[in-house]
Amino acid sequence: MHIYDIITKKKHGEELSDEEIVYFVREYTAGNIPDYQVSPLLMAICLCGCTDRETATLTQAICDSGDVVDLSELGDGTVDKHSTGGVGDKTTLIIAPVVASIGAKVAKMSGRGLGHTGGTVDKLESFPGYKTSLSPEEFIEQVKDIGIAVIGQSGNLAPADKKLYALRDVTATVDSIPLITSSIMGKKLAAGTKSIVLDVKYGSGSFMKTAEASTDLAKCMVEIGYKRGRRVSALITNMDVPLGHAVGNILEVKEALEVLSGGGPTDLKEVALSLASEMVRLSLGKEALEARRLCEDAISSGRAKAKLVEWISRQGGDASYAKDPSLFPKAPLVREVRAPRSGYITHMDTEAIGLASVALGAGRVTKDDVIDFTAGIYIGKKTGEYIEAGEVIATLYSSAEKRLDEGEAGYLSAITVGDEKPEELPLIHNVIGR
Amino acid sequence: MHIYDIITKKKHGEELSDEEIVYFVREYTAGNIPDYQVSPLLMAICLCGCTDRETATLTQAICDSGDVVDLSELGDGTVDKHSTGGVGDKTTLIIAPVVASIGAKVAKMSGRGLGHTGGTVDKLESFPGYKTSLSPEEFIEQVKDIGIAVIGQSGNLAPADKKLYALRDVTATVDSIPLITSSIMGKKLAAGTKSIVLDVKYGSGSFMKTAEASTDLAKCMVEIGYKRGRRVSALITNMDVPLGHAVGNILEVKEALEVLSGGGPTDLKEVALSLASEMVRLSLGKEALEARRLCEDAISSGRAKAKLVEWISRQGGDASYAKDPSLFPKAPLVREVRAPRSGYITHMDTEAIGLASVALGAGRVTKDDVIDFTAGIYIGKKTGEYIEAGEVIATLYSSAEKRLDEGEAGYLSAITVGDEKPEELPLIHNVIGR
Repeated sequence: MHIYDIITKKKHGEELSDEEIVYFVREYTAGNIPDYQVSPLLMAICLCGCTDRETATLTQAICDSGDVVDLSELGDGTVDKHSTGGVGDKTTLIIAPVVASIGAKVAKMSGRGLGHTGGTVDKLESFPGYKTSLSPEEFIEQVKDIGIAVIGQSGNLAPADKKLYALRDVTATVDSIPLITSSIMGKKLAAGTKSIVLDVKYGSGSFMKTAEASTDLAKCMVEIGYKRGRRVSALITNMDVPLGHAVGNILEVKEALEVLSGGGPTDLKEVALSLASEMVRLSLGKEALEARRLCEDAISSGRAKAKLVEWISRQGGDASYAKDPSLFPKAPLVREVRAPRSGYITHMDTEAIGLASVALGAGRVTKDDVIDFTAGIYIGKKTGEYIEAGEVIATLYSSAEKRLDEGEAGYLSAITVGDEKPEELPLIHNVIGR
Repeated sequence: MHIYDIITKKKHGEELSDEEIVYFVREYTAGNIPDYQVSPLLMAICLCGCTDRETATLTQAICDSGDVVDLSELGDGTVDKHSTGGVGDKTTLIIAPVVASIGAKVAKMSGRGLGHTGGTVDKLESFPGYKTSLSPEEFIEQVKDIGIAVIGQSGNLAPADKKLYALRDVTATVDSIPLITSSIMGKKLAAGTKSIVLDVKYGSGSFMKTAEASTDLAKCMVEIGYKRGRRVSALITNMDVPLGHAVGNILEVKEALEVLSGGGPTDLKEVALSLASEMVRLSLGKEALEARRLCEDAISSGRAKAKLVEWISRQGGDASYAKDPSLFPKAPLVREVRAPRSGYITHMDTEAIGLASVALGAGRVTKDDVIDFTAGIYIGKKTGEYIEAGEVIATLYSSAEKRLDEGEAGYLSAITVGDEKPEELPLIHNVIGR
C-alpha cells in the first residue's frame, strides 16, 4: 500500500477502502507519511467528498489512534456535549452542573480557545486553583462521587486528530463535512460517554455559514455516533450573533453564574436549557418535556449552582468567586464603543468580534500566547436592535490602550448599521436526533 | 498576501490574480512557503483547473524563476524540440543533426531519464568523452560554428519547475494540463529559442493516455508559446507502442544511426522526419513540403550523419563509434523472450516495457542510480503483429541474470495476446500549429 496511490484514487473521486484509510491515518500519526502528501489528500477529500462508509472508517481510525477512555464503571448515564465553536459560548459552565444535579454523569474533556473561539478549559481557569488535569483514576472517581468532572483533553486522546487538525488549519482544508465529522466524532468516541449532544453552530461566527450546511454536518455526525452504539443528538444553533452579552473568560464566567442564579440573557438561557434537556433526555431516558422541566427546576431551586460550587471546589478551584462574582478581578482599562450612526444593527460579523476579543487579550493567536482573564467585551446591542448615534453599544476591557484601540477598530468594523430592521434568524434552527 | 488565502481561492474554483501566482511561485522557490501548503494548492489546480490567463502567468513565473538564456546573437533560426517523454524515443539524435545540416540553429538542453522514460543526455553519453556540460559561451560559440549543441539542463534554468515537479511527482498531481503546460513551456521559454516543436505523446507509454487529452495539452502549450512571441507547433504522436525496436541507451543510439544511414524502423523514421520538417518549416520559414524534402535529402545525401559526426567530435565525444557502431560495447548477458501463445499482440503496456528496461539496468529508479549503457530491449514484435507460440518476440540485454529474470517477467506482463487483430492507432494523430 502506498500513499501515492491513495491520493490518486481520491483525486479521481473513487472510494477508498477501509484498509487504505486505516493505513493513511496510522502511518501519518506515526510520522511515516510527510505532511506534503497528506495535505493534497485532504484537499482531494474537500473537493471530492467521502461516502458514509469512508467517513465512518476515518472517524474510527482517528478514535483508535490513541487512548480510548473506559467509562463503563460509571454506568449508562454518562454524557458529553460538544460545540463546534463560537463566540460568547459559555454554555458548558451552565449545562454541566445542571445535568449533573439531575443525575447525569458528566465526564467531560474540553478544549482551549484558539483563533476567534474561546475554550471551556480557559474559562474554568478563571477560578484560581482549578485543576484542568486529573489522573484517569481521579477523573472517574470524581464523576462517581459528585457526577461531574471537566478536564483538558488528555495528551494521547485521538493524536491523529491533533496532527490532522493542525495541518488542515494551515492548508485551507477545514470546511469539509467528512473531515469535521471524523475530527469531532473521533475524539468524542474516544472520550467514552454513552450519550453525546452536539451543538452545531451556524452563521457568521461559525465555520458553517448557513443552517443548511450545519444540518448536513449534524446529520453526518449523529449517524456516525449512532452506528458506534452511542445515543447522539444535535441542535443547530445560531452563531450569527454572539451568544449572550459577554465575550472573554471572566466576563463569560460571570454571565454563566447569572444564568445559574436564575437571571442572565434570554438567548444564552434558552440555548443552555435546550442542550441540557437533550442531555437529560438521552442519558437518563426522560421524555423531552419532563427533561426540560427538570432542567428549569435545577436552576430555579439553586441545585445547579450548588453543584457548580461543589464541582469547582472538588477540582481545586476557589468557589468563593462563584458565590460572590464581585471578587473576580477586573480589567484595569475600560472603553465604551459608541454607535457611529443611528439605525438598526443589520449584521454582526461574529468571527470578527471574536478576533476583537483576542486583540484585547482574551484569547490566543498562537498556542503559546498567555491569556488575560479579565479582558473581553460586553456587548450592549445586538443584531436587530435600534441604536442612536453616539449611544454606547459595547464595552471593551483590556490592560493596554493599544489593545483597546485595536479592539475598538475591530469591533466597529464588525458591526453593520442600516435603516431596515433585519429578519431574525431562529436561535435554534433544528434538532437532529435518532 | 498569504498562501492560505490563495489555496482557499483556488479550492473554491476562483481565478487567481497574476500577483497571487507570481507570489506563490517566487516564495515557494525561495523556500518561504512549505511543501505542505503548495501540494494542496497543486491538488486544487488539478481538480478545479486554471483559466488561460492563469496558465500563461504560471508559465511566465516559472520561466522567470531562474536564468533566461539569451540566444539573440544566433539570429532568428534557433529551434528546440521537446518530447513529453516516451519509451524508445531516440528522435533527438536523428532530428538535431538533420535540421542543423539544413541550416537551423539547434541550441538544445535535454534531460536525463527518470522512471520509465529515457533521456537524450544519457543516450549521448554512450559516446565516450561526450561533454554534457558547456559554459554558456562555449554553448553559443559551438552553435554559431556548426549549427548544433546539445547539453544537459543548466542548474539555474527554471528552478521553480524543479521544485514543483519534484513535489508533483510524489503527490499525484502530475496529470494536469495547466501544470504540465507551465512546467514544459516555462523551461522552453527560458531556454531561449525562437522556434519550438513539441512532440506530445499519447497512449500507454505516455502520461496522457488518449489522443484527445494530448491534443488539449498541445493546444494549450502552443497558445502559450505563441503569446510569448515564439513560433510553436505540436505533433500528437503515438506512444501506445514503443518507438522503433530499441529501448536502452546504446541500443537506441545504434538504431538512430541506422536511420541517419538511410535505414531503420519505419515508425521511428516517420516521426523523426515529421518533427524535423516542422522544425525546418518554423525556423527557416520553408513550406511544409519543401521542408520535408530537405529533411529526406539530408539523410539520403549523408549530410545529416556527417553533421552528427561533427557535432559529437566537437563536443568531445569519440565519433568513431558513429562511423562504426559495432565498436559499441555489448551487454554480457542476452535472453530471448518467447511468445507464451499464438495470436495477435493486442496491446503493449509501453510504460511497463520502459520499466522492464529500467529493471535490466538501462534507466534510473532514483536520480542517483548508475546506468548500464549496454542494457535494454530489442523489441521484435509489436502491437498488431501475429506471433506463434514459442517464437522470439524480444531480446533482453543486461549484466545480471537476476535483472534478466525481472526484465523478462515485466516484459511478458506488458504484452497482451488475443485472437483478434487490434485496430491500428495512427502514428501521427494530429499537428497543432499557428
